[in-house]
Amino acid sequence: MINFQTSPDRYHHWKLDINGSVATLSMDVSEDQTLNEGYKLKLNSYDLGVDIELADAIQRLRFEHPEVRVVVVTSLKPRIFCAGANIYMLGTSSHAFKVNFCKFTNETRCAIEDDSRHSGRRYLAALNGTASGGGYELAIACDEIYLVDDGNSAVSLPEVPLLGVLPGTGGLTRLVDKRRIRRDRADVFSTLAEGLKGKRAKEWGLIDDTFPTSKFQDGVNARVKEILSNDSTTATGITLNPLTFEQTDDSRNYEYVKINLHRDQRYADLTIKSPGGDQPNTPEEIHKLGDKCWPLQAYRELDDALLHLRLNEPLIGLVCLRAMGNADTVLSVDKVLAANREHWLVREILLEMARVLRRLDLTAKSFFAIVEPGSCFAGNLLELLLASDRSYMLNSSEGALPEISVSELNAGALPMSNGLTRLQSRFLAEPERLEEIFGLQRSFDTEDAEELGLITFAPDELDWEDEIRVAIEERTSLSPDALTGMEASLRFAGPETMDTKIYGRLTAWQNWIFQRPNAVGEHGALTNYGKPTKAVFDYKRT
Amino acid sequence: MINFQTSPDRYHHWKLDINGSVATLSMDVSEDQTLNEGYKLKLNSYDLGVDIELADAIQRLRFEHPEVRVVVVTSLKPRIFCAGANIYMLGTSSHAFKVNFCKFTNETRCAIEDDSRHSGRRYLAALNGTASGGGYELAIACDEIYLVDDGNSAVSLPEVPLLGVLPGTGGLTRLVDKRRIRRDRADVFSTLAEGLKGKRAKEWGLIDDTFPTSKFQDGVNARVKEILSNDSTTATGITLNPLTFEQTDDSRNYEYVKINLHRDQRYADLTIKSPGGDQPNTPEEIHKLGDKCWPLQAYRELDDALLHLRLNEPLIGLVCLRAMGNADTVLSVDKVLAANREHWLVREILLEMARVLRRLDLTAKSFFAIVEPGSCFAGNLLELLLASDRSYMLNSSEGALPEISVSELNAGALPMSNGLTRLQSRFLAEPERLEEIFGLQRSFDTEDAEELGLITFAPDELDWEDEIRVAIEERTSLSPDALTGMEASLRFAGPETMDTKIYGRLTAWQNWIFQRPNAVGEHGALTNYGKPTKAVFDYKRT
Repeated sequence: MINFQTSPDRYHHWKLDINGSVATLSMDVSEDQTLNEGYKLKLNSYDLGVDIELADAIQRLRFEHPEVRVVVVTSLKPRIFCAGANIYMLGTSSHAFKVNFCKFTNETRCAIEDDSRHSGRRYLAALNGTASGGGYELAIACDEIYLVDDGNSAVSLPEVPLLGVLPGTGGLTRLVDKRRIRRDRADVFSTLAEGLKGKRAKEWGLIDDTFPTSKFQDGVNARVKEILSNDSTTATGITLNPLTFEQTDDSRNYEYVKINLHRDQRYADLTIKSPGGDQPNTPEEIHKLGDKCWPLQAYRELDDALLHLRLNEPLIGLVCLRAMGNADTVLSVDKVLAANREHWLVREILLEMARVLRRLDLTAKSFFAIVEPGSCFAGNLLELLLASDRSYMLNSSEGALPEISVSELNAGALPMSNGLTRLQSRFLAEPERLEEIFGLQRSFDTEDAEELGLITFAPDELDWEDEIRVAIEERTSLSPDALTGMEASLRFAGPETMDTKIYGRLTAWQNWIFQRPNAVGEHGALTNYGKPTKAVFDYKRT
Repeated sequence: MINFQTSPDRYHHWKLDINGSVATLSMDVSEDQTLNEGYKLKLNSYDLGVDIELADAIQRLRFEHPEVRVVVVTSLKPRIFCAGANIYMLGTSSHAFKVNFCKFTNETRCAIEDDSRHSGRRYLAALNGTASGGGYELAIACDEIYLVDDGNSAVSLPEVPLLGVLPGTGGLTRLVDKRRIRRDRADVFSTLAEGLKGKRAKEWGLIDDTFPTSKFQDGVNARVKEILSNDSTTATGITLNPLTFEQTDDSRNYEYVKINLHRDQRYADLTIKSPGGDQPNTPEEIHKLGDKCWPLQAYRELDDALLHLRLNEPLIGLVCLRAMGNADTVLSVDKVLAANREHWLVREILLEMARVLRRLDLTAKSFFAIVEPGSCFAGNLLELLLASDRSYMLNSSEGALPEISVSELNAGALPMSNGLTRLQSRFLAEPERLEEIFGLQRSFDTEDAEELGLITFAPDELDWEDEIRVAIEERTSLSPDALTGMEASLRFAGPETMDTKIYGRLTAWQNWIFQRPNAVGEHGALTNYGKPTKAVFDYKRT
């Protein structure tokens, strides 16, 4: 079972040094500390285990080290920055694992850009040696790229010429959409196994500057100093302690998040609980609570639960989402967060919530939201319902109807990858609905919610259990591949961004290529990499 | 060999009736007139041959019947509009054919929308019976959809539940992006094999209205009348005569377009020639020339050549593009077109040129533009260079250097699917370049072109032949699948539109699913459709 929790004292592959406002994140991959057997992580190549540590380091910088304004990403290995994803790991992995591996590494790169864009931390890739494939994709996720000019070191995306697959971590999209490199130059670069060195790489826009070996450290330091002259903060971080949970064969129980697996029916229940007791009212109280603060802890647990379901439970095709507890408490939490969003910690908590919700949007499983009495799909938790492929809300003739409620956070703090809120995406055809929804009445019972178009179905008590049972049975009987493609198409209506292009276009193409005999067949390029045999292609163009 | 030319008197599957301002395009598929063996086209299901006729009909409406303002798309079969792409055809086709088939049908649907958007012709889908799968996708490409309410007829996208694949002709994207149907409703609809009938289909936005059987024709007629009350034209069409060409085993020679195949090296030369002699100066002269007018004939030939290469020459991975002749003549043609773009025929010619260039953008083969002395990459033909993955321009130390030139048409008349011009897409990072390029000097020799970033490489005479030979050898040695994915990613930087989403996202997902054992394996859903055996899925989610 893959574990997504780690911390700097347990890193095998990275060193995180904090020196005042500057963090140095150095890659130094241990060849033998692999997540699976059958390969060695030579030349700072990586597997999922290496990327889990990178994701952890970025997360910790955000919460534990707000004082850090510049992150220098570099390597401790001589003459090599990073050789990218390990080819033998890819060659021996299942298709599903490869796809999930790429998705996670993409999310990690997007998290770097999210940090840069929204928290203003500047990432400098200090390439003290060659950055190839995923190594260059890591660099291109940073704000600035500096490459040593030692007559040897280069940047490259050699996947197409060497492996017959695409750079799988956003490389192609970031070439033309982020660095806006001319498409013909991007074409040449992406088919050139050896890549480009300092001068030409700079001329083509692949790096920002290049320095001779003897002046490399000085060059990077000067740039760091320049950035810091305009930027400082006196904030003090909080500590992210390990999440704890109880695990049985068919359940995983965190403090606020609980998963129950129905393996024979291939679906899971995932329930998130509202906080109990008094909640903090000021940023100072939030800071004092630290990682025990409900929104931070609950969303960290949700994140871990989603990753667990993705990687460790591939046969679970459907997740039934429930939010249970006190809606008023959730709304009061939202109120405090919204009122204090300028405070660094509140901002980081909101950005984390947004990232976790996007992880859900991008998870290749179906989600149904189930709204029953006692539920609290309110404010930030309403996003879970809006992120679901469908929702079912009980329409009871007797007793209290369940309610769903909006808060200010539903109006912009938790955007999807396409840049819209989930309510905007939902009501593309009727944007005027948003005014109604954010009007005076902000809580809606089943009939109101159905009328407003906030839910999909509102069965009454007589039909409730049957309708949900049948819906689950039907959903889990369908082709899991067709569902993945369908959901990826329907979830992201409206505008596209670099992120949606990476997850939508690039991922889909890569998934296709990862299946093709020319890559993974007996004579495929990926299969034959590093062997004395050579790839033999079926040259028919598709 | 598949032939893409046809005409109404040769249609097997459609009837095109013109009645003043109204055209009725009726589907009446002949079961036995299939493009290949092994299936029957029951229930108005279609194969590529049926869609070639549809594409021809739309094209003829534009050029031959400008007086038509409303097109009613309907069926002559009782109780069935169209059952979509034929499943047995899909089940017995190669992966590459399936992918190319879907792309062509998508281009035909986009051509309907292009006609509606730019030429103002209104398409009404008059569903006199059930429209399922590709049948509903044809309807949703129309502007308005009317469904008979006979207690039986429905609209549906049953691909996911019945076949384990996606609706492959833009259905999912048009649901949420064109008709902007709520994603949860789109989710329900796309997993419901039987689809939805009149009332609910209307409530969910899947159709515009529904009429009982006895009032269906009246209802559609009333809507036609309403549209016509605001729209009329007195234009007279021209005739599109069949294209003629000489074909040998390794060449195809039209009047202005010539293909030479180098099969053993898996590449082709495609040369387009400038017009000779006097060219028309007014819309009236253009109208008189009709389909012999150079831009129309040359681009029709180019279109046919591209389709021929796609479908009939799958092993050709690279096309070297040359434009040869007199640049001044090409520029004077552009000048007349630009000055008269309000004239219906000039507008149609420009729109046709734009569509053919987009067909090139979307062709899964590499394109290199080769610029030598005697070439005429000028104005509209410069788009061929800008659409190429790379360009090579001879830098001669002696004699005349080749030149490339811009015209007004490069500034907006020939947009890519992403809505940008090819020059805008090229210079996303440096939009100010466009001002330079459209400044006083509009023709550029090799050194100027290189300096401006208009070309990729400028080898001198000594290197010219070797450099191009090596580039061709390298390109054709690479994995054809990786190249397809790479080119699809690099060609479309910047914004996305519904069209790019269909070709980029949806196509890529469908390609993936079309390869998966759950669809096409021994136990896959597509393989087992209509057989007594049932699909057995590997339920792992990817």
